[in-house]
Amino acid sequence: MKALEGIKILDFTRVLAGPFCTMMLADLGAEVIKVERPGAGDDSRHFGPFVGEESAYFMSINRNKKSITVNLKEPAAVEIIKRMIPKMDVVVENFRPGVMEKLGLGYEVLKELNPGLIYASSSGFGHTGPYSQLPAYDLILQGMGGIMSITGPDSEHPTKVGSSIADIFAGTFCAIGILAALHHREKTGEGQEVDVSMLDSQVAILENAVARYFVTGESPVPIGNRHPSIAPFATFHTTDGFINIAVGNDAIWKRFCELVGRPELVEDARFSTNGARNENWQELEPILKEIMSKDSTEGWIERLRKAAVPCGPINNIEQVVNDPQVRHRQMIVEVEHPVAGKFKMPGCPLKLSATPAEEFSPAPVLGADLESVLVEYAGMTPEEIEDLRKRGIA
Amino acid sequence: MKALEGIKILDFTRVLAGPFCTMMLADLGAEVIKVERPGAGDDSRHFGPFVGEESAYFMSINRNKKSITVNLKEPAAVEIIKRMIPKMDVVVENFRPGVMEKLGLGYEVLKELNPGLIYASSSGFGHTGPYSQLPAYDLILQGMGGIMSITGPDSEHPTKVGSSIADIFAGTFCAIGILAALHHREKTGEGQEVDVSMLDSQVAILENAVARYFVTGESPVPIGNRHPSIAPFATFHTTDGFINIAVGNDAIWKRFCELVGRPELVEDARFSTNGARNENWQELEPILKEIMSKDSTEGWIERLRKAAVPCGPINNIEQVVNDPQVRHRQMIVEVEHPVAGKFKMPGCPLKLSATPAEEFSPAPVLGADLESVLVEYAGMTPEEIEDLRKRGIA
Repeated sequence: MKALEGIKILDFTRVLAGPFCTMMLADLGAEVIKVERPGAGDDSRHFGPFVGEESAYFMSINRNKKSITVNLKEPAAVEIIKRMIPKMDVVVENFRPGVMEKLGLGYEVLKELNPGLIYASSSGFGHTGPYSQLPAYDLILQGMGGIMSITGPDSEHPTKVGSSIADIFAGTFCAIGILAALHHREKTGEGQEVDVSMLDSQVAILENAVARYFVTGESPVPIGNRHPSIAPFATFHTTDGFINIAVGNDAIWKRFCELVGRPELVEDARFSTNGARNENWQELEPILKEIMSKDSTEGWIERLRKAAVPCGPINNIEQVVNDPQVRHRQMIVEVEHPVAGKFKMPGCPLKLSATPAEEFSPAPVLGADLESVLVEYAGMTPEEIEDLRKRGIA
Repeated sequence: MKALEGIKILDFTRVLAGPFCTMMLADLGAEVIKVERPGAGDDSRHFGPFVGEESAYFMSINRNKKSITVNLKEPAAVEIIKRMIPKMDVVVENFRPGVMEKLGLGYEVLKELNPGLIYASSSGFGHTGPYSQLPAYDLILQGMGGIMSITGPDSEHPTKVGSSIADIFAGTFCAIGILAALHHREKTGEGQEVDVSMLDSQVAILENAVARYFVTGESPVPIGNRHPSIAPFATFHTTDGFINIAVGNDAIWKRFCELVGRPELVEDARFSTNGARNENWQELEPILKEIMSKDSTEGWIERLRKAAVPCGPINNIEQVVNDPQVRHRQMIVEVEHPVAGKFKMPGCPLKLSATPAEEFSPAPVLGADLESVLVEYAGMTPEEIEDLRKRGIA
């Protein structure tokens, strides 16, 4: 049994933020019915890389879901959706605000059919406010939300995070909103709207940067891989790559200095406390660079770990997916896709002891579940569904 | 009324991942009782920046919570915690795996007292596997989890994300795990363990990097602010700063070229399709650099938005917190702290229409709620509590 067994979700989302949200809920056992355009489907079915003709990108964020195709521009299709709404717990969409209303599927309409419905939207800027209608891409939101202004080597090189975290955080927060709303409905019967935006989500994850701004009146700037107030907390070159070291307190510093054969650094007034090391980082960094350049990443890690100095490699993706801990935690999983064959992707980070999310079905072929879903939730016959297909409605 | 009203959480977490998780649950209305060490409290009470003597860092991730102080090394304190467990719905902790067990507060012990208890742990590497006992800092996990290997200008400069997203994602996923487990308990009465790790969380958010590796056998490398398969999708210098542009398809490209007075680029076979623009990026980039260098960020944004070309500034923190959309969405909120006075921080990105999370109490002064909590949940008298204080147990 999975944690969300019995929860039914009608999923109008495309590309990343929404599909990431509903993938988590599907991993947890919700029945997620993905509503796609006949013919083309979710845009991301056409994003590379491909395995044969199937998008690896699409497959990696749509596992455990069902797919139905209906053309939402056809009134008959909208009527079918409406017939399904009373049997659904959640609707999720990530169109630009206003699109669902134009289709006749806005919250005000659907809540009349099902007052307990949770209606969740993920959008670039949210459903209210002056930017609500602006187009949103991850890069744009990472820029507007502040994370780029504190990532990178210096203020001349604001840097985008290498994965689409503006989308992914929005999807993740949206899942939290949906689950909280389900909890409330369980107690009261009341449904509601959940309105999560990429911009809001970016502001929520700026961490100490916001506190630093409000206290000092100055906007923090990127400082590379360093920590604003802990030293050494940095990346160094080794003989064959890189190593990260995080000396979180003076006791670790002492162990570090002894391990590297430089006990005099502990006594050196310039470096004896975290505050002093921060202040004198310009002097300390070259000393540490010199020290760390003398062994390999693996050599250092073995020795530093024995001395309980927090450290680690900078793994590339190949190293990540083959890492013993990542493997042990089932964070790389394989499914058999009916068209693409065996396919590997990241697993689910939600490790629940009684209701594990560890069984995965492949992402659906476009429209694979049209008939079974419309029979079950719209009360239609196979003949009626065949007719919809012929008329291009499904 | 808030969504999680009535849910009681005993919160043993410190610093960031755990406190971020319980802050979201507190924002949603759960009663979060933070258990801290007498005297020192959560480590992050001593992290800068400070407002007077209060840590702005601590205050910004511990709002809406209560605080009690008990010395968990004292058997009497552990007994008090155990007395409270039957009245709790959730325990959250982010010690190194094994610490709660040593204190006599492991899941196996607590579930005997409350079989419906959700026991959630957030840790660096998870409670199982070969790295389980390694020390974890955000930098170390960003390095081991792969995000650094795809962030930055090139493979010689792997870059840490500027906020502690390894912690924040772990906290966020932990909240999802807790809410899913609560849903399951509601249906079945069964409690369980939730075991979320920073490493697992990092693997889960690598997005297309993992799919690209499995399809091509090659690890992606950092490519600055570009997109691996969309062009132009990049950052440019303007006369007074930067601008991000995301030309998601050929129709936008046409509008862009017309706006900038270079319609011939649309016909140019090197740039006429997204595929061609990607392939010939080396030739296209200097042309676009030249074009974008001729107006200010604000000038460009005004014109590009009119032409519906996705674009945006790279806001620094001052610009973010003063942005009209951010303000409209109540993503900067102010509370009155009893010691620090008026204090601003990021708001809650979970916008729920029926159960808004928009009222905030300040983070608690250390031990502020000791008496009321122990009276209510441990059945103690004020005299008994005073005695605990005198003996250094609370």
